[in-house]
Amino acid sequence: MHEMHFLQDLATVMLVAGVTSVLFQRLGQPVVLGYIIAGVLVGPHALPALLIHDESTIKTLSTLGMILLLFALGLEFSLRKLRKVGMVALVVASCEIILMLWIGYEVGRRFQWTTMDSLFLGAMMSISSTAIITSALDELGLKRERFAQLVFGVLIVEDILAVVLLALLTGIAKTGGLQPLPALAVLGKLGLFIAGSLIGGLLLVPKVVDYVAQGGRDEVLLVAVLGLLFGFCLLVSRMGYSVALGAFMMGALVAEARSLPRVERVIMPLRDMFSAMFFVAIGMLINPRQLWHYAVPVLVITLAVVVGKVVTCALGSYLAGTDGRTSVRIGAGLAQIGEFSFIIASLGLSLHVTSDFLYPVAVAVSALTTLLTPYLIRASDPVATAMTRCLPDWLRGVLVAYTRWIGNLSLRGQSALVMAMIRRLVWHIVINTALVAALFLVTAFAYRHGFFHVAMLSQHPGARRSVAWSVAAVLSLPMLVAVYRKAMALGMLLAELAVPVAVGGEYNLHIRNALARLIPLGVMCVLALLVTALASTILPPRQVVWVLLLAGGVLTWLLWHVLVKVHARFQAALLDVLSRGDS
Amino acid sequence: MHEMHFLQDLATVMLVAGVTSVLFQRLGQPVVLGYIIAGVLVGPHALPALLIHDESTIKTLSTLGMILLLFALGLEFSLRKLRKVGMVALVVASCEIILMLWIGYEVGRRFQWTTMDSLFLGAMMSISSTAIITSALDELGLKRERFAQLVFGVLIVEDILAVVLLALLTGIAKTGGLQPLPALAVLGKLGLFIAGSLIGGLLLVPKVVDYVAQGGRDEVLLVAVLGLLFGFCLLVSRMGYSVALGAFMMGALVAEARSLPRVERVIMPLRDMFSAMFFVAIGMLINPRQLWHYAVPVLVITLAVVVGKVVTCALGSYLAGTDGRTSVRIGAGLAQIGEFSFIIASLGLSLHVTSDFLYPVAVAVSALTTLLTPYLIRASDPVATAMTRCLPDWLRGVLVAYTRWIGNLSLRGQSALVMAMIRRLVWHIVINTALVAALFLVTAFAYRHGFFHVAMLSQHPGARRSVAWSVAAVLSLPMLVAVYRKAMALGMLLAELAVPVAVGGEYNLHIRNALARLIPLGVMCVLALLVTALASTILPPRQVVWVLLLAGGVLTWLLWHVLVKVHARFQAALLDVLSRGDS
Repeated sequence: MHEMHFLQDLATVMLVAGVTSVLFQRLGQPVVLGYIIAGVLVGPHALPALLIHDESTIKTLSTLGMILLLFALGLEFSLRKLRKVGMVALVVASCEIILMLWIGYEVGRRFQWTTMDSLFLGAMMSISSTAIITSALDELGLKRERFAQLVFGVLIVEDILAVVLLALLTGIAKTGGLQPLPALAVLGKLGLFIAGSLIGGLLLVPKVVDYVAQGGRDEVLLVAVLGLLFGFCLLVSRMGYSVALGAFMMGALVAEARSLPRVERVIMPLRDMFSAMFFVAIGMLINPRQLWHYAVPVLVITLAVVVGKVVTCALGSYLAGTDGRTSVRIGAGLAQIGEFSFIIASLGLSLHVTSDFLYPVAVAVSALTTLLTPYLIRASDPVATAMTRCLPDWLRGVLVAYTRWIGNLSLRGQSALVMAMIRRLVWHIVINTALVAALFLVTAFAYRHGFFHVAMLSQHPGARRSVAWSVAAVLSLPMLVAVYRKAMALGMLLAELAVPVAVGGEYNLHIRNALARLIPLGVMCVLALLVTALASTILPPRQVVWVLLLAGGVLTWLLWHVLVKVHARFQAALLDVLSRGDS
Repeated sequence: MHEMHFLQDLATVMLVAGVTSVLFQRLGQPVVLGYIIAGVLVGPHALPALLIHDESTIKTLSTLGMILLLFALGLEFSLRKLRKVGMVALVVASCEIILMLWIGYEVGRRFQWTTMDSLFLGAMMSISSTAIITSALDELGLKRERFAQLVFGVLIVEDILAVVLLALLTGIAKTGGLQPLPALAVLGKLGLFIAGSLIGGLLLVPKVVDYVAQGGRDEVLLVAVLGLLFGFCLLVSRMGYSVALGAFMMGALVAEARSLPRVERVIMPLRDMFSAMFFVAIGMLINPRQLWHYAVPVLVITLAVVVGKVVTCALGSYLAGTDGRTSVRIGAGLAQIGEFSFIIASLGLSLHVTSDFLYPVAVAVSALTTLLTPYLIRASDPVATAMTRCLPDWLRGVLVAYTRWIGNLSLRGQSALVMAMIRRLVWHIVINTALVAALFLVTAFAYRHGFFHVAMLSQHPGARRSVAWSVAAVLSLPMLVAVYRKAMALGMLLAELAVPVAVGGEYNLHIRNALARLIPLGVMCVLALLVTALASTILPPRQVVWVLLLAGGVLTWLLWHVLVKVHARFQAALLDVLSRGDS
């Protein structure tokens, strides 16, 4: 009987969604709106004849839709692309998100909503919709233009920041407020987790996917990729982060596989089916009568989103050195909210910190801004012209001067080379430090989940902790050696720069040497503190620590060359995966 | 929490299935076996660590797998292909199914199993596996050979007969035995339903699918096709037939759309994901310990399937006029059981008429025969040679004579032309009669479900019945006129053949005329009886019938030309859909 109900629900959802999506396609509107309308129709508030029997099953399937949606976004994201769009996208996205968070919060407070509601409203308003922009630019035939490339860059950065935002909001909702230190700890742990699994994943996932793809059967490839995806989502959610993060990261990892086109071909239909479910489930939460009651906030928020996003994104682009016309076009392209806003809204609901009305309001605002998007993009050129004409002369002068100044900012010649070297060394140190910290974190996580409670060790918690700690330490030895070597190099480079040959006479060499030693020492101290703080649950008793450290030192001394070689090979493999598409 | 469990189950299933399917692919074995093994591993009987939390969700998804599996089979099936392979496939499939049903039943009885268990065992043994044969022939590179084409023809016919078998088994299980008359009624109704929805569907479904496909978005096409599929499955299951039938028929209907390749591209990944679930769910039902207990039956049944299928299929092919060597190859290709056997086994379980052990036994036999299939196909040539050598001379003579006789059987010249004309007329009469009957059946079904209980009519059941009956009658007028005209033509043709010019002298014309009138009269009487019997629930009061008949007669007389035109257009549209691919 349960299966019959399920079939009936599925048939209802798919039939109604089919009709509305065909209709919206014919009307030239985004299909996503059709799905949401279908959800309103089959939901508990509209037509009783179409009522769904088992909402929970539809919602479970919609979770799958969210996972596949973000996985597909991750597939289109790539670390290489991100490096290309670089700073401009980062500036625009940060500017947009921070300002929109603030605007959204203020709007919420004006309506006398609670702090949490206002905060979530700000978060919802801060992230634009990749799905809607992509389809709008596609339909307008503007996908290849320069501004569109910048918009996609901003969207990529936004997707990452949105995931961070999700983690932050979860933290705030659970602790009740934003304490700077715990928030930093949350962010730090999250960053370490992301860095660790990205690097570990880059070494493993593309290889596994390509190995499976070699077999030549789409069926097996699909099942294996889904296994990786769901498995990783499960792990991520067990660690207390959102499945959205896991899905996006797994997508970014699979995107580095050679067989990406085949993966995309088999995944897209699944994404289409389940994301239809996702949007239908969103529609099902809307009560049209309640929406009518909130008509004023919906209109105000819509206005705030459109005006706010156009202004903040255009401002960000301009500050990052883009010309005025392109900046306005970028702003117009990003002026709507979509799937991430729904994810944030549902997060608020599931954490029981936001009010019921917030979700339908977000959906209504998304629908209105989505409808406006194509018109805004078309209108951006006249708007830019009008804005330029309205500016007072002195402001126009300042703007032109700013554009010229930022254009001259980049370094040239030898100092640029030295800066590039320093930047590379710092990057190496940061990444390897992050990896070490991530290793200790993962070991601590495994320890908490009883991974080291094997029979032989179960007698003595101290012994268990020592083993766990030793495992993490041994595994991180190649990274530790790398950090030390890069820190040495950095120290020497900085010493040479800081103490010119003229200074200090015969002591010159000694001063340089001292400086060159100080930097690796400092780096290692920071690393030690970090590890001690992060892995406090698996810190062995003090006397054991000293023994272990001594043993580790001897081991490092003996195996120095092996460790250097291991790390070099590891780094080469990583660079190979990342540079594959460039060649 | 429910969603987390669901995600965990999905992750477990997909991870284990991913590993086993990659493994089986590397070993060169069918991936399906990998899925089944994965099911055993995550099922309740093997590894407690991998236990699935919510079996019912996995089973619900496996129902989707079954629907999509049969839909994909239907997509590959096409009415045109069926016309080409024609009689040979029908003879082989009928021969195989009837004999294997009997062999299976006898085997079951020898093991002292109940009548129902034995009957279902026979049914399971009677249908070969399209999925396994297709992949085996693909891997052996034999897909283009003539015997492979015949094998595919047999599989198509088998798929149809299997669906009929499912309906019959349901009937038997519900009534407790096979009474000839109710069974015939079930079969007749089923045939009418299939004919009616195939013809109605051919006029509608390809057009709808092509219309949606014109929009150009795969997403919308996918959702619309799924809507049609699930909706039709729901209707079919509401009418008391299996969803498998609905899925297969909808596949056959969509297969006539011009945009079939696109539909196949978007549907296949979904089928792959959910059919993996389907086979995993099958594996979950297996208890290895129980299977060990039933090792002897499994081996005996495996032997019976292999030997029985090779012999019965080869016999059927030979009787249908294929040469000996090809016949043995066809037999070897068809010697295994697969997905349909699982569907039949699960039908028995869900109707509570078969024992628990039957399902795992079927799965084990399927696994063994699947493993044997490639070897059997490779061995078929030597086997055929050996068999020819072993035959006594007289039998070989008989066989050669039979082949020659059946080769000479087909008609030639004018009589062949006349036979073709008669066959066409009979077909037209049968199809139109079936359509009329189907129309009345559907109206009666709608009546029973309160479709005619509108306020105005609700006072008087007689009035309601009259309205329903009139609707059906008016809708079937074009078909009735067509039946009458074709019957007239048939009558004249037969009269001319039966009464040569030499007979009867001057009365010759009168005799011919009388004969020519008798046949349409007889056909109309049969039709009237059929309608009365089938639509007894909506038969109006007697005096109303006469009035309605009179009104119908006058209407027919007035609109004769219109009705002929309507039917001609209808027929032209149908032929257009069917002949599309030929041009």
